[in-house]
Amino acid sequence: MSLGEFDLIAKYFTRTVTRAALGVGDDCALFATSPGMQLAVSSDMLVEGRHFLPTVPPQRLGHKALAVNLSDLAACGARPMAFTLALALPRVDETLLAGFARGLLALADAHECELIGGDTTQGPFNICITVFGEVPHGQALLRSGAQPGDDLYVSGTLGDARLALEAFRGTVALDGAAFESTRLAMEQPQPRVALGMALRGVATSAIDVSDGLLGDLAHVLRRSNVGAEVWVDALPRSAALHAMPLTWQRECGLAGGDDYELVFTAPPQNAALVTASALSARVEVTRIGSVTAVPGLRLLDRDRQPLTNTFGSFDHFKS
Amino acid sequence: MSLGEFDLIAKYFTRTVTRAALGVGDDCALFATSPGMQLAVSSDMLVEGRHFLPTVPPQRLGHKALAVNLSDLAACGARPMAFTLALALPRVDETLLAGFARGLLALADAHECELIGGDTTQGPFNICITVFGEVPHGQALLRSGAQPGDDLYVSGTLGDARLALEAFRGTVALDGAAFESTRLAMEQPQPRVALGMALRGVATSAIDVSDGLLGDLAHVLRRSNVGAEVWVDALPRSAALHAMPLTWQRECGLAGGDDYELVFTAPPQNAALVTASALSARVEVTRIGSVTAVPGLRLLDRDRQPLTNTFGSFDHFKS
Repeated sequence: MSLGEFDLIAKYFTRTVTRAALGVGDDCALFATSPGMQLAVSSDMLVEGRHFLPTVPPQRLGHKALAVNLSDLAACGARPMAFTLALALPRVDETLLAGFARGLLALADAHECELIGGDTTQGPFNICITVFGEVPHGQALLRSGAQPGDDLYVSGTLGDARLALEAFRGTVALDGAAFESTRLAMEQPQPRVALGMALRGVATSAIDVSDGLLGDLAHVLRRSNVGAEVWVDALPRSAALHAMPLTWQRECGLAGGDDYELVFTAPPQNAALVTASALSARVEVTRIGSVTAVPGLRLLDRDRQPLTNTFGSFDHFKS
Repeated sequence: MSLGEFDLIAKYFTRTVTRAALGVGDDCALFATSPGMQLAVSSDMLVEGRHFLPTVPPQRLGHKALAVNLSDLAACGARPMAFTLALALPRVDETLLAGFARGLLALADAHECELIGGDTTQGPFNICITVFGEVPHGQALLRSGAQPGDDLYVSGTLGDARLALEAFRGTVALDGAAFESTRLAMEQPQPRVALGMALRGVATSAIDVSDGLLGDLAHVLRRSNVGAEVWVDALPRSAALHAMPLTWQRECGLAGGDDYELVFTAPPQNAALVTASALSARVEVTRIGSVTAVPGLRLLDRDRQPLTNTFGSFDHFKS
């Protein structure tokens, strides 16, 4: 942290640190993992225009910046512990900072995840968060564990964030309620931390859906050396998305991106445990297909007839 | 990591990971600290025009991006373990990426510090590194431990990075050799990792000099509730800086910034241990003053007469 006007930023983020032996203000933050635990680490960088729109309310932006990182911990089944925040801002904007800090710290408190350090500087708007969690040794949910015959599940609903983005782009018109609910999904996703932890020992693999179901599921299939069939019309959708034409429902659900739901696999004999995990985590879980020994991804319609995969995965880097 | 053209970036940074149980490529990286060790974490964000000039060779930039983070570990006496890299680039520039990765990974190898994860995205050029080290429980060097009567030391030389910056700005003319040597100090600082580790149990406090000696020393004095006298003309300087007028020598040495040397305190009875630590770490260490019970910072000239402190601390945020 350098001297000067930007030091003012610190006041929005300075709190009493309890978990870290040493928090914000020394050269490093110090903390320890418990015996038998592994540290899970993930880092995400958010850039205006790529990962969020200039129209996002600062409080929701603060929430989302941490949420996308917590979602990575959730996908590993790790319990959140702490995070660092590096922030570049073109100028000190107290309204933005106050709202951003409020949203960020509210989500941090909800998950008992402490801000332990970071950096602030002047520059084009950029948010980089690195998050730390812990998971019992050998129990992390990985992308590589899916087995042929496993059931394929997803949490929550898919496609709302993409629908909201298209509404902002003007390619679709939504009524007021649909716009607000899908916008909330885009701007304030709920990381499935409790579900991820509950699925330790239950799921065989997991990933969070950030780039779109097809793209993210492909990572799991490649790492696990398996294939899958996906029941496209069984994908869980909000009422707002349900009101759209079927092609939109499929496109947003399969390739929407920015969902931050968990897609995971579990053997059929664990179906009751999956249901119990979902109940304990208070989130809906829907079975959307099966893992197959045959490689590749097969999309089936409501009559279990094959669909051609013509869906691109949401890409932050497409212009 | 999102799909698309920017995935190509990964090829420059993908290596076999040995320390982490799980490295680049899953939702999180997993690793464990050894029993009795604390994790030391630091995060720094570098922005073009603020922390580096567009003229910097990519290899030196890769070196520096990691070096400034390793310098924070050094200031805590922590042994480097691993780091994450988040990178925003306006476009995929293979020449830049190849050079950047070469410099970054060469320094990482030199310190056995593994790249275990990260993120890449399109956006204004921004480099955010979070570094992890370990230090035996309770042995981290802190800013808060300086005691009245302690000797005050600094490693290496101070002021070269500032002198190079002024040469780039055109406010000073340097001959070719002086320009190259000071430019190297600015663009390729050497983090004092070995010295920091050797000073565990020897030094009472430490900080790395990133914003300028006066500004950084002030953090130590405030945290330790002590004061200091600094022998301004005893500050270690390069031959290039020595050739400048005395006011320049003092200004660059006291308030230059971007030095990434360690300033630390140790009781007089540890003087021989300080010397031995410096020898083992193969870096010069110079005594530059004393810690006092009287608060505040007093600058003394070569006749030990008080100088008025008219030196600002280098500020990344001054326009």
